[in-house]
Amino acid sequence: MATSTYKQTGALLAASGICTFRVWAPFREKLALLLPESNATYAMERDGEGYWEVQIPGIGAGTLYQFVLDNDLQRPDPASRWQPQGVHGPSAVTDPAGFSFTDAQWKGMDTADMILYELHIGTFTPEGTIDALTTRLPWLQELGITAIEIMPVAQFPGNRNWGYDGVFPYALQNTYGNINDLKKLVNAAHKLGMAVILDVVYNHQGPEGNYLGDYGPYFTDKYHTPWGKAINFDDACCDPVRAFYIQNALMWLDEFHIDGLRLDAVHAYWDSSALHFTQELAAAVQELEMRTGRKKTLIGEIDLNNPRYITPIPNGGYGLDAQWVDEFHHALHSCLTGEQQGYYEDFGDLALLAKSYADAYVYTGQYSVHRKRKFGVKPDQHAYTRFVTFIQNHDQIGNRMLGERLGVLLPFEAQKLSAAALLLSPFVPLLFMGEEYGEKNPFPFFCSFEDADLVQAVREGRKREFAAFHLNGEAQDPQAEEVFASAKLSWQTQAGEHAALLALYQFLINLRKTHAALRNRQRSNTKVHAPVNNAVLV
Amino acid sequence: MATSTYKQTGALLAASGICTFRVWAPFREKLALLLPESNATYAMERDGEGYWEVQIPGIGAGTLYQFVLDNDLQRPDPASRWQPQGVHGPSAVTDPAGFSFTDAQWKGMDTADMILYELHIGTFTPEGTIDALTTRLPWLQELGITAIEIMPVAQFPGNRNWGYDGVFPYALQNTYGNINDLKKLVNAAHKLGMAVILDVVYNHQGPEGNYLGDYGPYFTDKYHTPWGKAINFDDACCDPVRAFYIQNALMWLDEFHIDGLRLDAVHAYWDSSALHFTQELAAAVQELEMRTGRKKTLIGEIDLNNPRYITPIPNGGYGLDAQWVDEFHHALHSCLTGEQQGYYEDFGDLALLAKSYADAYVYTGQYSVHRKRKFGVKPDQHAYTRFVTFIQNHDQIGNRMLGERLGVLLPFEAQKLSAAALLLSPFVPLLFMGEEYGEKNPFPFFCSFEDADLVQAVREGRKREFAAFHLNGEAQDPQAEEVFASAKLSWQTQAGEHAALLALYQFLINLRKTHAALRNRQRSNTKVHAPVNNAVLV
Repeated sequence: MATSTYKQTGALLAASGICTFRVWAPFREKLALLLPESNATYAMERDGEGYWEVQIPGIGAGTLYQFVLDNDLQRPDPASRWQPQGVHGPSAVTDPAGFSFTDAQWKGMDTADMILYELHIGTFTPEGTIDALTTRLPWLQELGITAIEIMPVAQFPGNRNWGYDGVFPYALQNTYGNINDLKKLVNAAHKLGMAVILDVVYNHQGPEGNYLGDYGPYFTDKYHTPWGKAINFDDACCDPVRAFYIQNALMWLDEFHIDGLRLDAVHAYWDSSALHFTQELAAAVQELEMRTGRKKTLIGEIDLNNPRYITPIPNGGYGLDAQWVDEFHHALHSCLTGEQQGYYEDFGDLALLAKSYADAYVYTGQYSVHRKRKFGVKPDQHAYTRFVTFIQNHDQIGNRMLGERLGVLLPFEAQKLSAAALLLSPFVPLLFMGEEYGEKNPFPFFCSFEDADLVQAVREGRKREFAAFHLNGEAQDPQAEEVFASAKLSWQTQAGEHAALLALYQFLINLRKTHAALRNRQRSNTKVHAPVNNAVLV
Repeated sequence: MATSTYKQTGALLAASGICTFRVWAPFREKLALLLPESNATYAMERDGEGYWEVQIPGIGAGTLYQFVLDNDLQRPDPASRWQPQGVHGPSAVTDPAGFSFTDAQWKGMDTADMILYELHIGTFTPEGTIDALTTRLPWLQELGITAIEIMPVAQFPGNRNWGYDGVFPYALQNTYGNINDLKKLVNAAHKLGMAVILDVVYNHQGPEGNYLGDYGPYFTDKYHTPWGKAINFDDACCDPVRAFYIQNALMWLDEFHIDGLRLDAVHAYWDSSALHFTQELAAAVQELEMRTGRKKTLIGEIDLNNPRYITPIPNGGYGLDAQWVDEFHHALHSCLTGEQQGYYEDFGDLALLAKSYADAYVYTGQYSVHRKRKFGVKPDQHAYTRFVTFIQNHDQIGNRMLGERLGVLLPFEAQKLSAAALLLSPFVPLLFMGEEYGEKNPFPFFCSFEDADLVQAVREGRKREFAAFHLNGEAQDPQAEEVFASAKLSWQTQAGEHAALLALYQFLINLRKTHAALRNRQRSNTKVHAPVNNAVLV
């Protein structure tokens, strides 16, 4: 699993049983390793870049450890691979060789072949575990899914969270399973011819259990963000911070055989460097591809309508493989539901959906009423396979006050139309779990923070957020266990309309895979007919 | 002088004597035009974009006016062309047709042909006026200068300022002369075959007399800058702000026949838009070039070592013609003076000067001790004529506590060596006024603010700034009139070493213009020999 481009940190266990503990803390005077089970401490040595290191023999997987900063703070490891007692407890050593992959024949997958299925481990199955997900892979394969996209699994506070509040980017959420379970999942998917995409959050860290600041300047106040200070991608001492996240990407892609990453909120990678963090990340992943002979895919969530992010590096771009296109969703959603609140005020006209079919982005320089400015440029040099579209996703459902899915918002006929609009499009389609059978359970925002002030702030923040979207009703309490429970899939796939919709999804996916016109998705072969009187789009 | 791409604001006087007053104030309820000389007020009408307008017949050049905001604030015009009573007084109408150019044969100048001469109007001559500068043009022509670069002339508080505290980007500093004087200067330069570059500040506004915020969201708090809030290039309502500055560039280039702009601190154009402000500006200027058949040049001051700014737009760049290269200066200066304070800590090795001759940038990805990070990328696709180099400039002199020039810092032989290092380089050379004869007068920072708190803050800020540079001595008072007076050129061009240096500059400039090897500045024809033992660079 070795990747040598960026300095690895964390507890690096070798086959010999010697474990190298390495952590970056450039401004600390003294660092020590503490093994709480034996109450032994070991002084660490600093190198010229501010990395501290100690090597200890005879360490086994599962050994608990902490770092002691300046004889004062006891802290978990920023690059912890395992937090058995949660975000505030000690870290634990893992064995990178504890699982033997048998997927040597697997070479990865191009976006052109992806039928993506976004899922959340905690709510996809009643068990809410990786193992339970693994047992469902054949069912997804039968549906026609070729790639699952897993919402973030980095360790978060408590046992309920969408995943975007993770604070240990290298650690698998301890309530989902262990690292061997995740490797087993990926191995099984590859056996079934399915790729695995993992959602990772490199634009911010969650608010609770975030101890990075104790170690060094992981954050900068050069930029204001909705989540406070920005990650330090361009200020003094940024190199080890950039390496921390890039090495994280390489860990998932190399050690875990993950096929690609969905990068959360790439527009919030604030970086004025000549070499943008996105580009450095993409170049590192391309180097891994060359070395391993396996295709790896980077898909960005980007709210800028700026094709530079998906332009190849030699052409002056940042080199991502693809990006999410929220505007396709917004255009379709507002036409079908008639909703015009919040950001939907920029949509509602069927011509805008036609524009998205043609240009991917709807706003390519026109004035946006919602943004109060001209927005975007036209991505006319970019293949359709560089754009991921969806009619639902975790955000578009869960950022509604009641978390309603299309299965509740739309009549059955409109659900069928939406499915066709998605699956017969020239873009890379992404389904959100349960969409295929018209799930009626909601997908509200949920969390399980432990810090009382934070819990209160989140509750109030959610209420504020919905001021623009909903005039009536009360926002649910995201901390409530029943809200999390309500988000679990019902798996009511057999009853009338559910079964019919499922069959339609299966049919459309199969059609997409086999029909020549749907496989040949060149821009030059695609013609969008303008709608007449907002009535029909052929 | 009409440029129609961006909405023009200000007092737009037509030949008919009808004057259109237009100003952007999107959140004001009511706007009125006040003509204080007649004490007449006129209600203005708002359009859908938040521009207010009124047309008044019988207006002559010189007519004073103000805008009255919400029946409350009386304010000068953000796009004022003339502030006869300074930054706090009323604006005045100017006649764009008041001067008749006779330079129809002039087609502009490529950077390859530029020998740039940076000057400050207030200190270049004893008179400190545009007219006095105009009389000196033949002398500069004899020296061999082909392009003068004028430090900012936008109206600033008081009568003494470098120009970077300007608050009326469209108004010519009232103590320098009037707009016809500036046009006469440009016309005369063109007659002598010389180009005129104007320094413009679009990254911030000065701290005193800045009334933009009363009119609308010209600023955003998305970014922290050394000067407070950033100009709003990407937040809500940014379109009219972008247009305000682009229209300003077009005014100087079109109405004033200016050949190019030196853009101050382009790295501080904070903009996450898909269409970067720099690119939109460059495209607008290119459109003007096409329309007028005259070459216009944009030169950026950019501290990012990111060649994207000078990459042509079709190649994914922002389309500037050239940029300043501070690192050439730093490499040479630290070798010659032995200085290692402040940012000079990154230099001092002759090999770094050799690197600058080869790559323009010194830092192309290596670790910078001063910046505490890896910095820059290599601009290997970019012609030498895209880089402006210098051995002195206003900043490098004036940002020293005592404002000493090389004429004081270096022995005579080293001054001659510097001149050759600059003028025989493959880059576009820029001299700072007086350098050509080894001026010994300093060029300290000076200003004449009227706001007492600001004066104190500036005094203290200067002292803090010099903590890194100078261990001993007292920072001068930038407000003192004698400090300004001390910055005036002595014009001691006749005495011994002065005359000899002047002759050398003249000789080297002539050699540069006539010697085939120095005219053929292709990258492929240039070879930099590595220095041996920091001893010699051939």
